[in-house]
Amino acid sequence: MQIRALVSEFIGTLLLVFFAVGSAVLGAEFIGTLGIALAFGFTLLALAYTLGPISGCHVNPAVTLGMLVARRIDGRTAVTYWIAQFLGGMAGAALLFLLAKQVPGLKTSEAFGSNGYDDRSEVGINLGGAFLAELVLTFLLVFVVLGVTHRVAVTGFDGLPIGIALAVIHLVGIPLTGTSVNPARSLGPALFAGGSALSQLWLFIVAPLAGGVIAALVHHVTHPAGEERVIADKASAT
Amino acid sequence: MQIRALVSEFIGTLLLVFFAVGSAVLGAEFIGTLGIALAFGFTLLALAYTLGPISGCHVNPAVTLGMLVARRIDGRTAVTYWIAQFLGGMAGAALLFLLAKQVPGLKTSEAFGSNGYDDRSEVGINLGGAFLAELVLTFLLVFVVLGVTHRVAVTGFDGLPIGIALAVIHLVGIPLTGTSVNPARSLGPALFAGGSALSQLWLFIVAPLAGGVIAALVHHVTHPAGEERVIADKASAT
Amino acid sequence: MQIRALVSEFIGTLLLVFFAVGSAVLGAEFIGTLGIALAFGFTLLALAYTLGPISGCHVNPAVTLGMLVARRIDGRTAVTYWIAQFLGGMAGAALLFLLAKQVPGLKTSEAFGSNGYDDRSEVGINLGGAFLAELVLTFLLVFVVLGVTHRVAVTGFDGLPIGIALAVIHLVGIPLTGTSVNPARSLGPALFAGGSALSQLWLFIVAPLAGGVIAALVHHVTHPAGEERVIADKASAT
Amino acid sequence: MQIRALVSEFIGTLLLVFFAVGSAVLGAEFIGTLGIALAFGFTLLALAYTLGPISGCHVNPAVTLGMLVARRIDGRTAVTYWIAQFLGGMAGAALLFLLAKQVPGLKTSEAFGSNGYDDRSEVGINLGGAFLAELVLTFLLVFVVLGVTHRVAVTGFDGLPIGIALAVIHLVGIPLTGTSVNPARSLGPALFAGGSALSQLWLFIVAPLAGGVIAALVHHVTHPAGEERVIADKASAT
Repeated sequence: MQIRALVSEFIGTLLLVFFAVGSAVLGAEFIGTLGIALAFGFTLLALAYTLGPISGCHVNPAVTLGMLVARRIDGRTAVTYWIAQFLGGMAGAALLFLLAKQVPGLKTSEAFGSNGYDDRSEVGINLGGAFLAELVLTFLLVFVVLGVTHRVAVTGFDGLPIGIALAVIHLVGIPLTGTSVNPARSLGPALFAGGSALSQLWLFIVAPLAGGVIAALVHHVTHPAGEERVIADKASAT
Repeated sequence: MQIRALVSEFIGTLLLVFFAVGSAVLGAEFIGTLGIALAFGFTLLALAYTLGPISGCHVNPAVTLGMLVARRIDGRTAVTYWIAQFLGGMAGAALLFLLAKQVPGLKTSEAFGSNGYDDRSEVGINLGGAFLAELVLTFLLVFVVLGVTHRVAVTGFDGLPIGIALAVIHLVGIPLTGTSVNPARSLGPALFAGGSALSQLWLFIVAPLAGGVIAALVHHVTHPAGEERVIADKASAT
Repeated sequence: MQIRALVSEFIGTLLLVFFAVGSAVLGAEFIGTLGIALAFGFTLLALAYTLGPISGCHVNPAVTLGMLVARRIDGRTAVTYWIAQFLGGMAGAALLFLLAKQVPGLKTSEAFGSNGYDDRSEVGINLGGAFLAELVLTFLLVFVVLGVTHRVAVTGFDGLPIGIALAVIHLVGIPLTGTSVNPARSLGPALFAGGSALSQLWLFIVAPLAGGVIAALVHHVTHPAGEERVIADKASAT
Repeated sequence: MQIRALVSEFIGTLLLVFFAVGSAVLGAEFIGTLGIALAFGFTLLALAYTLGPISGCHVNPAVTLGMLVARRIDGRTAVTYWIAQFLGGMAGAALLFLLAKQVPGLKTSEAFGSNGYDDRSEVGINLGGAFLAELVLTFLLVFVVLGVTHRVAVTGFDGLPIGIALAVIHLVGIPLTGTSVNPARSLGPALFAGGSALSQLWLFIVAPLAGGVIAALVHHVTHPAGEERVIADKASAT
C-alpha cells in the first residue's frame, strides 16, 4: 500500500492551509491581496518539488478528481487521497488556529480565511457568480496540472507552472470568493469560522470538483491519450 | 489537419483574456498595477508549459506573425491560428463579461480592460506615443519568444522567460496604453467596452503586428538561420 | 579539508544577511513586507545556484542540523559549517551596519532587523506563539531543502523551490517575529541591536533548530532512505 | 569576427535600459519600488534566455570586466563588448526619452532614472556610502553570474538566478542610489538628465567595475579553476 503517498498528501495539504491561508489570517494588512496570492502560489510551488515525486502533490480533491477522470490514477487511490487531503486541511487549520490564538487582538472567530459569497465576498458577488468563478478558476488549475504532467521532456518543470497558475488564480479570485478551487482548503477554515461559512461551504466543494471534471474533459481533446506520464506511479507501486 | 492545435490556441487565448484582463476588470483596486502585470505574465507562463507542446502557445496574432516572418510556420497555419486566437479572445471577454455582471456595482460598461490613448490612457499618452510604445513592447515579447524557441538545450525553459517578459512589458505599458502587444487580447474587451475603445482599436492591432515583424527581422540578424527548432511541428504533423 | 566549502558558507551567510536583512533595515518603508519577503527568498535562490555546487549552500545552521539528522553530512562537517555560518552572519551584519551609518537619520541603534516577540513583534505575538511559529516556519524550509535535494532528475531545480519557500515563510512570519528560521541570520543583527534583541535571541536559535530536527524526522517517513543524493559530497571530498 | 555577439550586447543593453529604467521613469507612481526592482530583474532574466546563447548576455561592463578577470573572455572581446554596451545604453535612453516626450506633464528634464547620492538619493546616502553600496551590490551580481555560468549540469538555469539576483539588488539599492551596478545603465540616462547626474556619474562607473573585479577574485577562491564553461565561446568562434 501507498502509506508514504498518503502521508505526503496529508502533510502537503496541512502545510498549504497553514502557510497560504495563514498568510491571509495573520498578514493580510501587511502583505495585501498580492502577497496572499503569491503565498498560495509559492507554497504550492515549493510543495510540488518536495512532494511531487512521492504522491504527485495533488493536495487538492479537485486535482485528484481530474486525475481520476483523466485515468491517471485509479478509484481506490483517489478515495484515499481525498481522505488524506481533507484530514490534512483540517489539521492545518487547527494548527493555524492554535497559532492565531497567541496573537493578541486577532479575531479568529470571524472569517478565518474561509471562502464566501454575497455579504461574505469582498465585492459582494452573488451565488451564481461565485459558482461560475470557482468553476473557471479551478478549470485553469486542473488544466495546467494535467497538461504539464502529461508528457514532458524535463520532469522538474511541473512545479513552476502549477504554483504560478495558483498565484494568478488567487489574483483574480480573492476579491470574489477568497478563492477556494480546493475543497480541502475550504473545509478546514470553515470549521473554525463556523456560521455562514459552513452554510456556504457546499459551493466551495461542488464548484471546484465540477471545474476539475470539465478540465479533464477538455484536456482529453487537446492532449492525445495513451502517452501520459503517470506521476503517481511511484506512490502506487510502493 | 491540426484541430488540436487550433483548439489549443482558442482555449489559450480565452484563458489569457479571462484571467489577465479579468485581474484588471475585477481586481484592479485590490492588486494594483503590479498585480495586474504579474497576472498577465503568470497566466502566459502557465499556459506556455501547458499548451506549448500542443500548438506552441502563441495565443497572440503578433507572435504568430513573427513566427511566420521567421519561417517557423507556414501561411495556412498562421491564418488558422489567427482565427482561433481572435475567436478565443472574444470568448474570453464574453465569459469575463458574464462573470462581472454578477458583481454588484461593477461598471462593466466602461473601459472593461480595453486599451487606449489620449484620455483613455492613465498618463494621457498621445497617439504617436502609444504607437511607439506598443511597437517596442511587442518587439520585446516576440524577440524573446523567437529567441528562446530558436535552439535550446532544454525545452522546458521556454515558458519562464516568455511569461516573465510579458510581466515586465505590462509593468512599463499599463500606465501608457493598458498594454496590448496582442491584437486578440485587445479586440475582445473592446467589443464589450464599445465607443472610443472600438475607434482606437486599429492601433492595438497594427502596432503590435508591426512590432512582431521588426522583432523577426532583428532576430534574423542575431540568431543564425537554419538551426531553428520548429516548436509548432507536433501540431502541424497531426 | 573542505576550505572552499567553508568559504562558501561564510560568504553565502554574509550575503544573505547583508541583502535580505538589509532590505528590511534600509528599505522597509519603500518595499513593504512583501518586498522584504521577496528579498529573503530571491537572495537565497540566487545563492543556491551559485554556491549550491560548492557547499550545498546551507547558509543556515538549522538546515545543516537537518542535513546531519538526515545523515547527508557528518558531524565534523556540520560543526565547521556552523562556525562559518555564524561568522558569516556577524560579518554581514557588520557590513550592513557600516553602510547604514552612511544614511543620515537611519536609526541603526533600534531593531536593526533583529527578531523578537511580545512588544518586539509587529502583532505582539507572545513567547509560546513565537516558538510555535518559528518551529513550523523552519519545518517548511528544511522539509523542502531535504526533499528537493533528496533525489531529483534535474539538479538545477533545487534553488527555485528553496528560495520560493523562504519567501512564503517570510510572508507569513514577518508580522509575527520578523522571521528567523535561521540562527545565524538572527545572531548578527541582534549583536548590533543589543538590549532585548539579545535577551530574546535564544528562542531564535532553539526553535529553528528544533524545527529542522522535526523536518528531518518527517522527511525520513515520506522519502525513502538509501537513495539520497548527497549534495555536500563535492565539498567533503575536497 | 563576432558581429552577432556585438549586436546582441547592443540590443540587450538597449532593451534593459528602455524597459527597466523606463519602468522607473514612466511608472514609478504606479508600480512602486518593488515594481521597478522586479522590472530590472525580469528584463535581465528574459534577455539572458534570449541572448545568452549568442553573446553570454553580459549587457553590463562590470560583468564583462569580471569575465575578463576570471579569464572567460579575452581583452579584445571585452573592449568590443564595452563599446556595444555603452552605445546600447545610450540608444535605450534616447528611445525612452523620445517616448517620454509623448506623455503630457512628464518631467523628463529631471532625474530621468539616473543614479545619485547626497541630495540625489532618496535616503540622502553620502558619497562613501554610495560607493560601498555599489561595490557590494555589484559584487553579488557578478559573483552570481560567474558562479552559475562556471560549470553547471543544465545550461538553461543561468538566466533565472541572474535575473532574480538583479531584482534583489534593486530592492536594496533603489532607495540608496537608484542602483547602478552597471556603468552602461548609468551613462545613458545621465546624458539626458544632465547637471549633477553627470558630475556624479564617475562613481557609478568606478564602483561597479571595482565590485566586478572583487567578485572575480573571490570567485577564484570558491570555484576551482580549469573547469569553467566559457559561455561566450559561440560568439568568439563566429
